[in-house]
Amino acid sequence: MKKILIVGALLACVVPACAQQNLWKSQDIESAVVNLDHTVTFRFQAPNAQKVQIAGDFAEIKEDNPVGGLVGTGLIDMKKENDSIWVYTSAPLKSELYSYMFVVDGTVTVDPNHPYIFRDFGTVSNYFIVGDGLADLFRVQQVPHGTLQSIWYTSERFKMNRRLNVYTPAEYEKNPNKKYPVLYLLHGAGGDEDEWVNYGRTCQIIDNLTAKGLCEPMIVVMPNGHVSFEAAPGESSLGLYKPFHPAMMNGEFEQGFPEIINFVESNYRVQADKAHRAIAGLSMGGFHSFHISRLYENTFDYVGLFSAAVGLTRQEGIYKNAEETLKKQIANGVKLYWVGCGTEDFLYKNNADMRAMFDRLGLKYIYRESGDGHVWKNWRLYLAEFAPLLFK
Amino acid sequence: MKKILIVGALLACVVPACAQQNLWKSQDIESAVVNLDHTVTFRFQAPNAQKVQIAGDFAEIKEDNPVGGLVGTGLIDMKKENDSIWVYTSAPLKSELYSYMFVVDGTVTVDPNHPYIFRDFGTVSNYFIVGDGLADLFRVQQVPHGTLQSIWYTSERFKMNRRLNVYTPAEYEKNPNKKYPVLYLLHGAGGDEDEWVNYGRTCQIIDNLTAKGLCEPMIVVMPNGHVSFEAAPGESSLGLYKPFHPAMMNGEFEQGFPEIINFVESNYRVQADKAHRAIAGLSMGGFHSFHISRLYENTFDYVGLFSAAVGLTRQEGIYKNAEETLKKQIANGVKLYWVGCGTEDFLYKNNADMRAMFDRLGLKYIYRESGDGHVWKNWRLYLAEFAPLLFK
Repeated sequence: MKKILIVGALLACVVPACAQQNLWKSQDIESAVVNLDHTVTFRFQAPNAQKVQIAGDFAEIKEDNPVGGLVGTGLIDMKKENDSIWVYTSAPLKSELYSYMFVVDGTVTVDPNHPYIFRDFGTVSNYFIVGDGLADLFRVQQVPHGTLQSIWYTSERFKMNRRLNVYTPAEYEKNPNKKYPVLYLLHGAGGDEDEWVNYGRTCQIIDNLTAKGLCEPMIVVMPNGHVSFEAAPGESSLGLYKPFHPAMMNGEFEQGFPEIINFVESNYRVQADKAHRAIAGLSMGGFHSFHISRLYENTFDYVGLFSAAVGLTRQEGIYKNAEETLKKQIANGVKLYWVGCGTEDFLYKNNADMRAMFDRLGLKYIYRESGDGHVWKNWRLYLAEFAPLLFK
Repeated sequence: MKKILIVGALLACVVPACAQQNLWKSQDIESAVVNLDHTVTFRFQAPNAQKVQIAGDFAEIKEDNPVGGLVGTGLIDMKKENDSIWVYTSAPLKSELYSYMFVVDGTVTVDPNHPYIFRDFGTVSNYFIVGDGLADLFRVQQVPHGTLQSIWYTSERFKMNRRLNVYTPAEYEKNPNKKYPVLYLLHGAGGDEDEWVNYGRTCQIIDNLTAKGLCEPMIVVMPNGHVSFEAAPGESSLGLYKPFHPAMMNGEFEQGFPEIINFVESNYRVQADKAHRAIAGLSMGGFHSFHISRLYENTFDYVGLFSAAVGLTRQEGIYKNAEETLKKQIANGVKLYWVGCGTEDFLYKNNADMRAMFDRLGLKYIYRESGDGHVWKNWRLYLAEFAPLLFK
């Protein structure tokens, strides 16, 4: 890990005192250190613990382990190296963004020596990145950076102000007369408008692809797909509540979507036509993308369904007779219809059934099958593959 | 805590499966619940623990307690309520934003049932808000919300792209021809451009004051005061490193500040004159505000020093003969010079000495003395009192 040479500090001695009188002083150890050979070293200080384990999505899953409600991970024993520090160094890991946490005598905790934490629905975990491969796209590189805005639109339909994340490309401010295409990027049922920003690494992926000339400069709009919420947990007037699942997939988000398009096209320099609109999403967001694009059947030239949560809802309301509008969408033409799914995904069969319907109706699509299940690893990959195909 | 009625969900049964196969399932308990009488109930699941304690800035400090490197907090024993859940309910708490964490058999951990976490330099802790008083300003209310942007400017001086947070008021998009005043708001030595957004609650404070007509609609610019960094930890090309203190308070940030002003005034609709520029900051940011405002001695009509880290640097470089430019600044006139400090602040005497110098030189200022030390509680309070005085 590169370190800036610490020189010229007139003040080094008083620095600890200058920080706020905070609760938790840093410990003098480093953890989640990615070594040159792509092994990763974890350290945890727990002098009194009997057993410290590490849970991570890089760990082999050996059994269904109920400790602390952990799922999708194995548990690896760490070794006590001296009186107080527990250590584990992994095998070399493939380039990826990984999540992890520690289990100390059965109690799950985050890593106090690696303060990089994402929230996923109601839980938090640490993350780290192993580079020199695909995950270089997920890192902040020394390239021009787009702007990320958290902006609120007023929904007449839902009678509230609602939060959107909007990424504008690095060149946006420098070209005050240029208009840009828009990708609407939708989250899953456990997520919110921040999910694609955090786990999804959208700003980094689009920054890096754009800098390499691999994708067109574009605006990416990340709305909140739960229409009973103003915003992500902690960002709304509901305050700091324990996250809970609201009503969802009842057709309301789809019917309110024109408000979002209108807001974006009124407030940003946008190429406001079908050829310059894309919509994609993961899981529930893939379901939303399917329905929004066929409901407004001449609006999007690019559609991406990432592990889409299709085939789960009852055929009522806007979901009744979906094939009718889908046929119109097909007749109108779509430049790119893209479907991705992991072989281990619990929605694999639902996606296969959907593709069979597409085949029957004559909708041409690109199908990308990857390994693994219903996980971010796939959705970052899909975005990285989908974005370069847009607006060309 | 208000809960949205969960109705009309066609899909409730498959929701847990729709969330990503994440590491850590939520436990079925609620913690950091603010009760109607302003007591707060904490819960922690640890069936095997011998002792669970809570550390928080609401806890009385009884002794210097080295457990886990905690500072500025007392430790309170929790009680085991049944086989696995430890519970503590506080006394009624004053309206404030509080931080806390748990100590489980001597190991510090965050609360897995309250996923609201801030990073402060190299550490993380949970936070909660007790309302019905000052801290209502810190909550997201049902008022029009400004836009928060993370935008990057190119620094010629430091040869890198650098990240800024910029808040524009709720009405900014609705008044495309109106120009706005700007408050430059600077962080402390342990912070970065995200500090005023997170712990500082700047967006919420300014949103709420503006909605009540108590402050002028304004732009707030929050730059990164460590000039060897592009951005906050995790947001720069340094990657996910263990945060460390760079060179600081060596005059470089002050000398590079015109680049920031130029960027803001070129990219936002700004009233670009002295009467519509304010600069304020906490600790190192107060030090920066003092020096920047006297160095560019006819640029700011409003200056705010919050627990300023003055009197610590050697009198060399731009810090030599500071009084000369300060005298010019005084001669040019300043509409408001505001100084705030806590009685327990380790910089109290430094601030008293500074005020004695101001008295000697004839600089008129408002002095606000509060209780407590070098903590966010004071800086949020100061922002809430300072902002309404600006641009009037």
